Amino acid sequence: MSKKSLYLDDLSRGMRFTAGPVTLTEEAIVAFAREFDPQPFHTDPQAAKTSFFEGHVASGWHTAAVTMRMLVDAAMPFAGGSIGLGLELSWPKPVRPGDALSVTTEIMDITPSSSKPGRAIATLKTTTTNQNGEVVQVMTSKNIVFKRGHAPRETV
Amino acid sequence: MSKKSLYLDDLSRGMRFTAGPVTLTEEAIVAFAREFDPQPFHTDPQAAKTSFFEGHVASGWHTAAVTMRMLVDAAMPFAGGSIGLGLELSWPKPVRPGDALSVTTEIMDITPSSSKPGRAIATLKTTTTNQNGEVVQVMTSKNIVFKRGHAPRETV
Repeated sequence: MSKKSLYLDDLSRGMRFTAGPVTLTEEAIVAFAREFDPQPFHTDPQAAKTSFFEGHVASGWHTAAVTMRMLVDAAMPFAGGSIGLGLELSWPKPVRPGDALSVTTEIMDITPSSSKPGRAIATLKTTTTNQNGEVVQVMTSKNIVFKRGHAPRETV
Repeated sequence: MSKKSLYLDDLSRGMRFTAGPVTLTEEAIVAFAREFDPQPFHTDPQAAKTSFFEGHVASGWHTAAVTMRMLVDAAMPFAGGSIGLGLELSWPKPVRPGDALSVTTEIMDITPSSSKPGRAIATLKTTTTNQNGEVVQVMTSKNIVFKRGHAPRETV
């Protein structure tokens, strides 16, 4: 079974998928932040020492993006792709250079679409943890999942 | 007044900040997606035609990251930086190559911290729109704001 092969037919509440670890280097943290979140506590390890975070930390958006990469690679193996409609996100603890992140996604609920019979909305809880098992991001998202025979073509 | 100079003392409900536009090119959409969200509807303009989105679209995380860049540049001018605790995010409409995005952030609420007198939590609604005024992302976030004299040093 390929990593992209799960249809609505195959999914049930309580199923879990995992991926990682992926290590965030200081260089990667600075590069992401220079492009998308150029604040001193993300771009400048030295200046970060006197910041709110008392040290260099990754942008929360970098953590979110790396989490997405892990979901696409392995932790959200749904036919038709990983298509999010909306989500809640929190960052209980900052990510520091050298942290190795892993994710676990759990299916919390599946609601069949009333208007489109080939689809459902899955509520997913994705937890990102560091190498010490500390939670650095919690995401609860609503994603489209497709019934076998109803997924868009190119990703089947 | 520098763009980073607003303290809790200066903020009130209903204040609005704007930034943009920033254009997302096809090349930028593909580059971001290859690194963080390698799904065909983001990485391959040709394959995207038969996807759920019926064409090439940006990763929602790319939209979120570009929105963050606009917040840091101009639309969240808070002393001490833009420090988010948690948020809700939705993508009502996809972003296509060439779309020029702008953001508006509105202060919805300000709640003084009970434990830390120099701080408050601001509830912010950040709306990202395309060149046609269509909303492509809505984010409601909780951010830390600092009273004058209580912000961390490096960003003052």
